[in-house]
Parts: sequence; structure tokens; C-alpha cells
Amino acid sequence: MFRGIAAGAGLRVTGVPVDRDGIRVSGIRSPAVVITPAHQFPMGVTLSSQRRDELVRWAGAHGGLVIEDDYDGEFRFDRRQFGALQALAPDRVVYAGTASKTLAPGMRLAWLVLPRSLVDPVRTQMVRTGWRPPALDQLVFAELLESGAYDKHVRSRRAEYRDRRRRLEEAALPHLAITEQAAGLHVLAMLPPGGPGEAEVIEAAERQSLRLGALGEHWISAGPHPPGLLIGYATPAKHAFGPALEALRVSLGVLDAN
Amino acid sequence: MFRGIAAGAGLRVTGVPVDRDGIRVSGIRSPAVVITPAHQFPMGVTLSSQRRDELVRWAGAHGGLVIEDDYDGEFRFDRRQFGALQALAPDRVVYAGTASKTLAPGMRLAWLVLPRSLVDPVRTQMVRTGWRPPALDQLVFAELLESGAYDKHVRSRRAEYRDRRRRLEEAALPHLAITEQAAGLHVLAMLPPGGPGEAEVIEAAERQSLRLGALGEHWISAGPHPPGLLIGYATPAKHAFGPALEALRVSLGVLDAN
Repeated sequence: MFRGIAAGAGLRVTGVPVDRDGIRVSGIRSPAVVITPAHQFPMGVTLSSQRRDELVRWAGAHGGLVIEDDYDGEFRFDRRQFGALQALAPDRVVYAGTASKTLAPGMRLAWLVLPRSLVDPVRTQMVRTGWRPPALDQLVFAELLESGAYDKHVRSRRAEYRDRRRRLEEAALPHLAITEQAAGLHVLAMLPPGGPGEAEVIEAAERQSLRLGALGEHWISAGPHPPGLLIGYATPAKHAFGPALEALRVSLGVLDAN
Repeated sequence: MFRGIAAGAGLRVTGVPVDRDGIRVSGIRSPAVVITPAHQFPMGVTLSSQRRDELVRWAGAHGGLVIEDDYDGEFRFDRRQFGALQALAPDRVVYAGTASKTLAPGMRLAWLVLPRSLVDPVRTQMVRTGWRPPALDQLVFAELLESGAYDKHVRSRRAEYRDRRRRLEEAALPHLAITEQAAGLHVLAMLPPGGPGEAEVIEAAERQSLRLGALGEHWISAGPHPPGLLIGYATPAKHAFGPALEALRVSLGVLDAN
């Protein structure tokens, strides 16, 4: 999404390596960087405190702009708390939040916390594109926030998603190791070397009416990448989650055949 | 609005003269033209049949693009019927409709009927800008359309606005001649020569907490323009319309003072 938008605006997009602590700040070669610190997409790691500090120092020293996409920060299943990076450098970090994961993408509700110098340029762009969130939905959302209903909803979804994640891990365990990610609404599962690749497993899942993501789709740098699957667990309705897990079990059978 | 968007995209905007039959097609010097055929903004005239034909011929002969902004076409108070220009040249005309006037601008619901060749480019731009109408509101709107409730609502608003227009004309009549426009949600009233100008009347209205528009704001070509007022009558709530008319009567008193 971000890549298409940047490329569409005539910008060149480059990748930055990510390890267990998140983005490798020393690898940034561009004036602006998009990060997903709560739950790196697609790798799932959380940006460590040291890297946060390093990133803020980089932005200050290079006049760099950090775009902090907090797309699913509401969903952490451990007890760790992370504040927004934006608070550490409000003049260099754009914070982006959304109701897409907590309510629905179709709400088209999201918000930006901008460095003061970007408020007018962003407002001008919004007028030019005609993009403005619908007023009625904003009022409803404000009512949800003020009444505490939103918070209650997020907490109840968090419990539901934690449970789904556990059940997903159980279903996948005989076939795949799911890397530890105590957050978000999808897991990353690396495929064992030498066995069927991403395309093969995804095809097997499609035969079960199940859509899985390929790690390869999100890889920016050229050359080979370790094969992996992205498995989301938020979309199916409650009654459909059990059957979806069963379909996953059947699909992953292709891994045992080899 | 259109002018800002076009200018923001790096395009040069030029005006085309408008007379009683609408846009003077022979005056078009650009590859694309924006028209408001049902109720020309701000002059209020309706595009005549001859001019419609002429415009379609122009588009065919010059490979021109016509953007038909049907922003308030639902509100005609006479019995004349006008079809969309788009139907006459579907490969050269972009039709734009909206729920902004029939429901509320804050709904952010609008639609385009595009020449086939523009569907993909427009879709690409929508993805780039992130602009998409909210799904829930679209479903509600579809329900309104299918159940007939929308049609009923528009008819009831039409009757209400026809009545408001009549009352507005009565209120303004001693001071101003309102040019004939049997459509839309605003009237244009030309100011008598030699009297107070647009700014003076608008200031008098502001003292009554009433906002009027100036014809001059919408004039594109340089040089003098005839002074006129744009008076909208859709915005005040039902209980506030009478007091708003009274405020208008008081404001227009400045015209008698001279």
C-alpha cells in the first residue's frame, strides 16, 4: 500500500533490513522511512527501545522523516507497553492510527499526528484529493470513544484474538513453527527448507477456500528470501473460525506429503 | 473547488463565457471543460438543447473531455426534464453525481460514470490517494435507494425548497431582482448599479450572522464584473429559516439607504 502510494508519487522505494529488534537504523539510506513499530509488517517483531532511540537520533541528525504506522497497536497479547515513537520526536515523526483493525477497514476512519510544519501541506493535499472522513461516522466514533464503548470493544476483541491466536498455533503446530509475536492480527510461519514452497501451500489453501499470504510478496530486495506464510486470524466471523482452522489443517497437509 | 484541484495538479485554468443558454461552446480553448448543465454555478442558467448538441460535437471533433458536474440536478422546480449529457457521448463525458445536496456533504458519497478508457486510471488514483467512500454508508445509501426512501426524501425536500425559494424571493423582492432559475439550492441576485457593492451588502449580512456569497468570488476572467449576490436557502434548519429571511430583509436595507 505505502509502496504503491510512494511509487505513484514518483518516489523511489528502497528496503531496509529488519532483525529481531526491528528496523536496522544504520541501513536507512533515504530521507524518509515508514515503520510499523508495534508489530513490524510482515515480520511481526516489535521495535526495541534501543532502536527507537537510534531512530530518533537518526531523524534529528539527518533531518529525516519517520512515518509511524500504528496499524494494529491496539492488539498486544503480552503485558509489554509501548508508547508512540511520535512522542519522542514530535517534529520529525508522523503518527498514523486507524480504526480499520479495531472496527472495520470499510469505516475509512484514520488519524494523523503531524509535525507542525506538515499540517498545512497535508491539509492542502486533502482538499486537492477531496479526501475527507465522513462527518457522521466521525461523530459516531467520537461517541464510542467518549462513552467508553470503544475501549470495551477493543478489550473484548483483544481477548477474542488472543484465543484465536492460541487455537491457530495449535492447529498449525504439527506442520509449522510460528515465530513468536505477541501482537497483531496475523502470524508469520516460516516454511521448512526443502519442502513445498509458498506458492504450493497457498494453492493448497485456495482449494480449501482459504487465502494465505506469501512472505515473498512483501520482500523488497532482489534475490532469494526465506519462504514463509502470513496467516491472518481476524477476518472470519466467530462461527466460521473453527471451520477455517480445519481448512488450514487440511491445507498444511501438503507439507507432510514430502 | 474544481479550480483548486486542477491548479494543484499543475493545470492552467481558464474561464469560458456563459450566457442565457449556458456555456458558449465556441469559447472553449482547453482540452477539458467542467460544466454544471442543470444549474450553472454560479449563474444558475440551464444548458440549452442546442448547446448540449454543440458541446458533444466539440468533444467529438477535438477529442475533448467534458466533466458534467450534476451537483444539484435533483432540484428542479419547473416541469422541464433534462437527461444527463453523459448519455449523448459516453466516451467523452465524465458524469459526477453526489449525495451532498440531497442528504449532506458530510456523507462523502458521490459517484462517477466514466468513459471506459478512464476507469483504470481513476481507480489507480483512488488507490494512491487512499480515497474510498465508506462501506457502511454505501450500504445504507443502497438501502435508501432500493426501498424508495431516497426518492421520497428528495421529493419532499424539493417541495420544501420550492417553498423556501418563493419565500426568499418575496423577502428580497423590494430590494433585489432575483434572476429566474427554476432549479438548485441558491439564487443569484444582481445588485443595482451605482449602489452599495458586494462587499458592503455581505458585511451588512454578517452583522446579522448571515453569510452571503459574492458573484465576484467565482469570476475567472480579469476585469470588472457585474456585482451580484449568491443566496443559498438549503442550509438553515426549518425553524431557523424564518429568522434567516428576517435577517436578510434587515441586511438588504443597506440598498435602500442610498
